[in-house]
Amino acid sequence: MNTSPARFSGVLSPVVTPFNEDLSPDPKRLLAQCKWLLSQNVGLAVFGTNSEANSMSVEEKVALLDQLIEGGIDPLRMMPGTGCCAFTDTVRLTGHAVKLGCAGTLMLPPFYYKGVSDDGLFRSYAEVIERVGSSDLRIYLYHIPPVAQVGISLDLIERLIRAYPETVVGIKDSSGDWGNTESMLQRGWDDFRIFAGAESFLLQTMRRGGAGCISATANINPAAIHKLYREWDSDHADRLQQEVDQIRELALSYPMIPALKTIVASFTGDPEWAVVRPPLVALPAAERHELLDGLRQHDFSMPGLGAEPDRQRTLR
Amino acid sequence: MNTSPARFSGVLSPVVTPFNEDLSPDPKRLLAQCKWLLSQNVGLAVFGTNSEANSMSVEEKVALLDQLIEGGIDPLRMMPGTGCCAFTDTVRLTGHAVKLGCAGTLMLPPFYYKGVSDDGLFRSYAEVIERVGSSDLRIYLYHIPPVAQVGISLDLIERLIRAYPETVVGIKDSSGDWGNTESMLQRGWDDFRIFAGAESFLLQTMRRGGAGCISATANINPAAIHKLYREWDSDHADRLQQEVDQIRELALSYPMIPALKTIVASFTGDPEWAVVRPPLVALPAAERHELLDGLRQHDFSMPGLGAEPDRQRTLR
Repeated sequence: MNTSPARFSGVLSPVVTPFNEDLSPDPKRLLAQCKWLLSQNVGLAVFGTNSEANSMSVEEKVALLDQLIEGGIDPLRMMPGTGCCAFTDTVRLTGHAVKLGCAGTLMLPPFYYKGVSDDGLFRSYAEVIERVGSSDLRIYLYHIPPVAQVGISLDLIERLIRAYPETVVGIKDSSGDWGNTESMLQRGWDDFRIFAGAESFLLQTMRRGGAGCISATANINPAAIHKLYREWDSDHADRLQQEVDQIRELALSYPMIPALKTIVASFTGDPEWAVVRPPLVALPAAERHELLDGLRQHDFSMPGLGAEPDRQRTLR
Repeated sequence: MNTSPARFSGVLSPVVTPFNEDLSPDPKRLLAQCKWLLSQNVGLAVFGTNSEANSMSVEEKVALLDQLIEGGIDPLRMMPGTGCCAFTDTVRLTGHAVKLGCAGTLMLPPFYYKGVSDDGLFRSYAEVIERVGSSDLRIYLYHIPPVAQVGISLDLIERLIRAYPETVVGIKDSSGDWGNTESMLQRGWDDFRIFAGAESFLLQTMRRGGAGCISATANINPAAIHKLYREWDSDHADRLQQEVDQIRELALSYPMIPALKTIVASFTGDPEWAVVRPPLVALPAAERHELLDGLRQHDFSMPGLGAEPDRQRTLR
């Protein structure tokens, strides 16, 4: 019997991380947000870029993982981000995620040193895989050159799949370059799960045989994005794509993470959700109001979190 | 009586970090290298970019700092790099350095999130300063946009000096842009210590009132660089500048960190010095030999470490 974790497909969210006023992470609100996302059929890529993962220490992330599992979150729905600059940190966090039973990890390449070779990046991933040393480890590579500046080439992916076919099982392509995603899809790697880095490419990705998307906006618009995923092969798929695009474009008119947190703060009625860690800054009041007004004009809602944004509520 | 640490001037080296074959840091060889550098009048900016600092975890760096101090290194000659992506990591490492009596810390801005505002970066530094909460803390800002991609603007420097005049006391400018260093020097900030990020700009920096340089090549050519620093106001300063430039250009023809480690490995007679952590890779044999041959042609030596590179020695 094969008990190894199934490969992911569908829609996942890099879950935004709630902080208290003193900037400490708040496991209670994170747990609630994760439960709500699961209820919307969205998986949990906690500790992604939009989770401010790289503004937290490894031990802060280890503690949050423990608290989510203790809180009843199914580790088979979790794909925590675990890629750090130092492979020793990546090994620590990845090993812990595997120990907790997480079905996958989303792994950035080491991102401080620039212009590094594919040999060096292969060596980074190989060290992590060998040191974690578990047949339960499932890595989804995280290609996000606009932020990490260190990318993952097609040749590197192929080399990793060849060396570790049961471990390196997918990728999130956040290059913003459809040509790159398409090239990956065309390679036809056996059961390799290719996720669009945003729902803007979800329909195209599904039509070419991709696995789904892992998208920041799934934090606020999970149901509609999941509907597009589920019904991508239907007659109305293009309309569904246009609908999710509108919400995404609105949110993207502002710095992404503060905008997402503003929206969650408004719909949960909890202004502390707007707190971001440095080097980010919260949206100024005028932009907050503009953003929430824009959503209201789209009759946007987050069922289960609240009916509509409260115009009067004072957000931090 | 004012017992606060004196501000740095002169030449410092981002000390290369020795790793064992299993990639663990080797405190013994690091201690020896630090002692040798001090004997050459070069201060210790351990955990700089060229120390592979961002390929080590915070706790690995904390342990190395402890071992250097236990080994008798004077903390007043130390300016460890302490800037991490997560301010909680930066606080931990910086606080430890201050506790050990280090006379300064060299602090990168958080470097994962790109396009962040000066407000956000100010907030990052302010959080660290407030949380470390020590009147002994001395921060030298670390501006290295070619690698960190997140830079430190002149306005941000000015704002930090204004808010924390006794704490934010200097900068290393590794922009590679003399115009930027010159602009900083022209601002005339009171007793603010401006270090060139490489000895190539040392003479120009000293002539405009700068404090010295913090340079990777000081790992291998400390005496000549310190001589240029000491004699910058002499008739033969331009010749000294040309001489150090020649060695730097030779080393820079190869990936910097593997090249420096190849040279140290050769002169110490210890091939394990050539080990680098991923994502870096060691120089291939042909390049190692070419580099060492080039140095030989310059009659290059590292007095106290060894007489000349051993052509026959097998480096890893």
